[in-house]
Amino acid sequence: MPGDPFSGLFVPEAIAETTSPEAWLGAMLNVEAALANAEAETGLIPAAAAEAIVSACDSGGFDADRLAREGRRSANPVVPLVAELREKVGGDAAGFVHYGATSQDVLDSAAMLIARGALDVIRGELDGVAAACAELAERHRETSMVGRTLLQQALPTTFGLKAAGWLDSLLAARERLGSVSLAVQLGGAAGTLASLGTEGERVVGLLAQRLDLEEPALPWHTARLRVADLGAALALTAGALEKIALDVLLLSQREVGEVAEPSGGGRGGSSSMPHKRNPVGSVLAIACARRIRGDAGVLLAAMPQEHERAAGAWQSEWAPLSDALALTGGAAAAMHDALQGLEVRPERMRENLELLRAELPEEEIDRALDPAGYLGPASVFVDRALSRYREGS
Amino acid sequence: MPGDPFSGLFVPEAIAETTSPEAWLGAMLNVEAALANAEAETGLIPAAAAEAIVSACDSGGFDADRLAREGRRSANPVVPLVAELREKVGGDAAGFVHYGATSQDVLDSAAMLIARGALDVIRGELDGVAAACAELAERHRETSMVGRTLLQQALPTTFGLKAAGWLDSLLAARERLGSVSLAVQLGGAAGTLASLGTEGERVVGLLAQRLDLEEPALPWHTARLRVADLGAALALTAGALEKIALDVLLLSQREVGEVAEPSGGGRGGSSSMPHKRNPVGSVLAIACARRIRGDAGVLLAAMPQEHERAAGAWQSEWAPLSDALALTGGAAAAMHDALQGLEVRPERMRENLELLRAELPEEEIDRALDPAGYLGPASVFVDRALSRYREGS
Amino acid sequence: MPGDPFSGLFVPEAIAETTSPEAWLGAMLNVEAALANAEAETGLIPAAAAEAIVSACDSGGFDADRLAREGRRSANPVVPLVAELREKVGGDAAGFVHYGATSQDVLDSAAMLIARGALDVIRGELDGVAAACAELAERHRETSMVGRTLLQQALPTTFGLKAAGWLDSLLAARERLGSVSLAVQLGGAAGTLASLGTEGERVVGLLAQRLDLEEPALPWHTARLRVADLGAALALTAGALEKIALDVLLLSQREVGEVAEPSGGGRGGSSSMPHKRNPVGSVLAIACARRIRGDAGVLLAAMPQEHERAAGAWQSEWAPLSDALALTGGAAAAMHDALQGLEVRPERMRENLELLRAELPEEEIDRALDPAGYLGPASVFVDRALSRYREGS
Amino acid sequence: MPGDPFSGLFVPEAIAETTSPEAWLGAMLNVEAALANAEAETGLIPAAAAEAIVSACDSGGFDADRLAREGRRSANPVVPLVAELREKVGGDAAGFVHYGATSQDVLDSAAMLIARGALDVIRGELDGVAAACAELAERHRETSMVGRTLLQQALPTTFGLKAAGWLDSLLAARERLGSVSLAVQLGGAAGTLASLGTEGERVVGLLAQRLDLEEPALPWHTARLRVADLGAALALTAGALEKIALDVLLLSQREVGEVAEPSGGGRGGSSSMPHKRNPVGSVLAIACARRIRGDAGVLLAAMPQEHERAAGAWQSEWAPLSDALALTGGAAAAMHDALQGLEVRPERMRENLELLRAELPEEEIDRALDPAGYLGPASVFVDRALSRYREGS
Repeated sequence: MPGDPFSGLFVPEAIAETTSPEAWLGAMLNVEAALANAEAETGLIPAAAAEAIVSACDSGGFDADRLAREGRRSANPVVPLVAELREKVGGDAAGFVHYGATSQDVLDSAAMLIARGALDVIRGELDGVAAACAELAERHRETSMVGRTLLQQALPTTFGLKAAGWLDSLLAARERLGSVSLAVQLGGAAGTLASLGTEGERVVGLLAQRLDLEEPALPWHTARLRVADLGAALALTAGALEKIALDVLLLSQREVGEVAEPSGGGRGGSSSMPHKRNPVGSVLAIACARRIRGDAGVLLAAMPQEHERAAGAWQSEWAPLSDALALTGGAAAAMHDALQGLEVRPERMRENLELLRAELPEEEIDRALDPAGYLGPASVFVDRALSRYREGS
Repeated sequence: MPGDPFSGLFVPEAIAETTSPEAWLGAMLNVEAALANAEAETGLIPAAAAEAIVSACDSGGFDADRLAREGRRSANPVVPLVAELREKVGGDAAGFVHYGATSQDVLDSAAMLIARGALDVIRGELDGVAAACAELAERHRETSMVGRTLLQQALPTTFGLKAAGWLDSLLAARERLGSVSLAVQLGGAAGTLASLGTEGERVVGLLAQRLDLEEPALPWHTARLRVADLGAALALTAGALEKIALDVLLLSQREVGEVAEPSGGGRGGSSSMPHKRNPVGSVLAIACARRIRGDAGVLLAAMPQEHERAAGAWQSEWAPLSDALALTGGAAAAMHDALQGLEVRPERMRENLELLRAELPEEEIDRALDPAGYLGPASVFVDRALSRYREGS
Repeated sequence: MPGDPFSGLFVPEAIAETTSPEAWLGAMLNVEAALANAEAETGLIPAAAAEAIVSACDSGGFDADRLAREGRRSANPVVPLVAELREKVGGDAAGFVHYGATSQDVLDSAAMLIARGALDVIRGELDGVAAACAELAERHRETSMVGRTLLQQALPTTFGLKAAGWLDSLLAARERLGSVSLAVQLGGAAGTLASLGTEGERVVGLLAQRLDLEEPALPWHTARLRVADLGAALALTAGALEKIALDVLLLSQREVGEVAEPSGGGRGGSSSMPHKRNPVGSVLAIACARRIRGDAGVLLAAMPQEHERAAGAWQSEWAPLSDALALTGGAAAAMHDALQGLEVRPERMRENLELLRAELPEEEIDRALDPAGYLGPASVFVDRALSRYREGS
Repeated sequence: MPGDPFSGLFVPEAIAETTSPEAWLGAMLNVEAALANAEAETGLIPAAAAEAIVSACDSGGFDADRLAREGRRSANPVVPLVAELREKVGGDAAGFVHYGATSQDVLDSAAMLIARGALDVIRGELDGVAAACAELAERHRETSMVGRTLLQQALPTTFGLKAAGWLDSLLAARERLGSVSLAVQLGGAAGTLASLGTEGERVVGLLAQRLDLEEPALPWHTARLRVADLGAALALTAGALEKIALDVLLLSQREVGEVAEPSGGGRGGSSSMPHKRNPVGSVLAIACARRIRGDAGVLLAAMPQEHERAAGAWQSEWAPLSDALALTGGAAAAMHDALQGLEVRPERMRENLELLRAELPEEEIDRALDPAGYLGPASVFVDRALSRYREGS
């Protein structure tokens, strides 16, 4: 199976489950079932047919991998899924399976369900990272350290302010994730909902309600801003996490030595060097973030889609979307682990700060250690980030 | 000069001016002047010094290209700019130029000013595109045509609905552009604002006010979400425009012949085939959108920035940001031109629709021409897009 | 499991197997076994130890998914693999497992083995596409059709020349793939091979021989040109395939109607429109190619790697490399299917060509149908592509 | 003018000149002139006409910016250029301007000329970087230092080996650049060369000869592998340079202190911190490399081009190609400056190495300082890189 040969390394189980082939299959069946119910409610299909369809959807026995393989003939997995569902339902009710819908209605709505499920887990991990940052910001409000620009020592700052900066970016990323519209898709074969006649609008509304997704103004088969925007929001979130990872990595260098990721239980070990304590959480977060950007790029490039359904661009979205969700969860979980037990070494920070004495006027350094000096403004910024954090919690 | 050897081809003058080297120079000088004024207001520097600085900023005589060349030695253009400004100001006041600020404060704030200026022009062009779409949606509400999926004829739709879909995406893109935070930057050498003492916060507020930018919670030297988000929003906007361009292009094919971009005045001509009428607006919009995605990718990749100022990632943002702004304007202007005079041919749409008779039941086609049939739901969607448009205008 | 929720849809079994988690596990074990043998041959480790190691590598019972999950602690899957292998080997021989090597030696060498295996399958599919193109070029050498520029009718050309152009690009892509260096990796913990003493060089040579990989001049732990180049070569190949797919797609439009992908056996079917015959091969190839570009971008971005082993960039390579290999195979297989049974309609080509009569001088059209006219030069180009093809076969 | 508002900062004059709007204009005129000469040589056009055309091409008075602006109407700059050239030539000869060619013939051939000119300068800079690396490798063959993996201290290595690794990658990149095919383009309106009749082939050959470009097997209007491959080769080269920059940057950190970029003449200065000595060459190289990847991504994405001339993808290539060439030159020049005067501090390397004593067995460290110990294998690798370098010079 293509994709990631080492996926468990980057994505913990809890998030992986929300984006697995089985999760996608389940989401598609949920959409078919909810559609049948919504259509029964409006009288478009018989209630008994809806019951039969819902029961077939719940009956199990579908095989995600087989459907994918069979989907190769039609370039989408919904065609074989609907065929199998019809067979399971049997009788007259079979004709009401997928009534008035097109494959893309099911797949796009399922994608939104997948996104919602994954975002829930992602948000949980981000909350963990934010909490860790908030604690670091608070605790190290007066911990002086060297501020570094272009990787050179510049002027003093505090570790609290650094952590507050991380926190502030996470809050912004979280907000961006929350701003993405997750809407149901229902347009029928050509996006007109013609086959549902005058009940079309109502069915869309009911379907949205049942799936707990937004009701869009129009079918969005080839209006992909929400998908691309979700990709962008994930990349932005990953970028905010990677900034933290990069700082931790640089501060963890032996010669800098100001922080260390937690070890223990084999964490951070090497196959050839027993003395090493690798910053593995940061490494994983960086690797995830780099891949998420690749995914987000595919989603942005897929925006221009032809006419009423695209020939290639739409189909290119599924894996990158699923992958970006999983990896954002992976990156957040990795930084959550890294920051939760982060070892901070104020004495090394102080020592490195002393190196500036050779280059800066004495009083500049002394001010650095004086809470009434530059620690003042830095502390104001820490407060701002913390109060923004507390408001949001 | 690197960059675009044919920039006038892609970007009309009005938008090009907002992102030119001279515009950037002007924006940086505006920041230095506003900073001096804000600092004088708080008493951090003498009023006379501020006056001298403002007057030097306004005096002209700076050379954007020379400053860029000189900036090579310090990897940023603000170092030579400040040196030149100090020389112009002269006397005691020279010491108050750029007081407490770092190069990045000036460049980031200038970037936000550039973005605001360019976004104003972009929004104007997008309004033009939206107006054209709204008119097409309204006028062709009952113009039947073939809906096409995977580039194959599928079922009937209306040209009004197609235009309504374009419109709806443009409105969403416009909203995304509007959601990007444009904030002032002021943090001083290490992002602590230490050198402004207890007045730091107030200076930030005043500077934000004078430059009409948002006041950020914290300095954002290495918290780049807003820059990457702006890039993403531009790419999303470009994607919405490219979707329209792609549809126009496909509908313009000789064998389809349902629309044609305006010609006249040499527009759409070829160097070797006088009979051709090329869909040049769409071609330009597509070319711009493709390049904007490249720029947005660089901005997303630049998010993880080291410590208190990045060594490379920050410096990689300037050109892609400027370029993406200019090209989004170029894409919008191109589609504005293309749609404003778009020739729509309902008779060809009808003819192509008749081809479906061979493949669909007769009544399906007849329904396609019946406003009480599938034209009904399509018309509802058109109304929704139009009312959303009218509310926003 | 993250990655592609519908991978069987894009990647046929034969290629999927070459890049599966199990294939990666097998490759890593092959490297460990070959290393033991090479080291025994040079006398660095006892022959009996090598035997025990090889036998443990062959013994089965490793679990790719579990190793990946356990690898999360060390940010690479080789650490737990080596631990498990040592346990299996047991006794004194355990100490000779992975002797003098570092995790990256094993993973990078395994990646090269995976690449070689996948490239073999890819090449087979590309040969199929090339053969189909060659046949089309030969058979339609004198089949006149409209040449189209900017999607507008331009001047006559031949379908043979179009297919010859496809063929020529495929040959160039195949050559590019062949030019990528697949080299063994062996440098030890810091890339110096210090722990192998004076036998280091010889072990590298023997290992290369046993694995049938190139021997590099230097360990390339952080010199990633070959990996990024492989990504680029795959993206170039995918681009050549996508160009064919795009042309097939456009020629398949109902209103153009000049070619049709093979149907039958449910191929090309739709979930809502029984009359449709979708160009599914082209659609799949385009979707694959778009994703491959995302992967290639991650690989290019991973080139700058820190010091002697990277913290994040290296780890970001594994999945995109594996994915790009699988998807290139998927794209090639899809176009192989599409072209092998491609239905070509010379009469529709002729009809569309007649549309040009209204716009071009009569004689231009007549020349188009005259083999001694412009068909002449076109035919020369067809010959060139064909003879280049035959030489390479 | 869009593009880079600070281009002189990233791209020195010598390379900027090879990719300027004026250089492109000159290249297009060179193509028109060479085409006229080639056609006169085959008797397709009168010798006098060719003379008049050549003389008009040489006469000056064209304005690159104006042509770009006028090109907006036809979505390419060659249409207005040919019009202006015809007017300049006047009389009967005017009809022989651009004879049998299409705009893309001229622009693509000009792009190849631009590439060749820029690659010459790039190669010169790369040679400078390679020479500096070779010298460092030679001189520091026995300079012990810490090898670092995942940014943690691992085991000893030598600075000579590090520099040899840089060198080896540069040589590989140089080779990749040299492998890109720069071919003339001539296909006429639909890529058939029909309008040149039986002389078509000969004209292509003569044109290739006159412009000193390769003669392609077929016109390559929509077979873009060579353009995308050039983009990839530039990104690979930039990646090799960025790896060096990243190492220099990390080694330059105050707390590591093992190397320093040259200073003097204001180089490396800061606007707010006089004590700083910024690694500006590395910073610039990194910024350039990041942007080059954006450009290369656009070029890869532009590979699938429709039919006989693309509507958007082709037009998207021009600026990224030109930009990537200029920036690769800029990155190489920046690293040339950085390495040429690089200050290497063996004593700091030794001090940092001593930190490993706490964690490694004593004898491991002692071996690190013993040329007969691990310095042996490292030295072999240094020799290999050096001899590969000397062979290539």
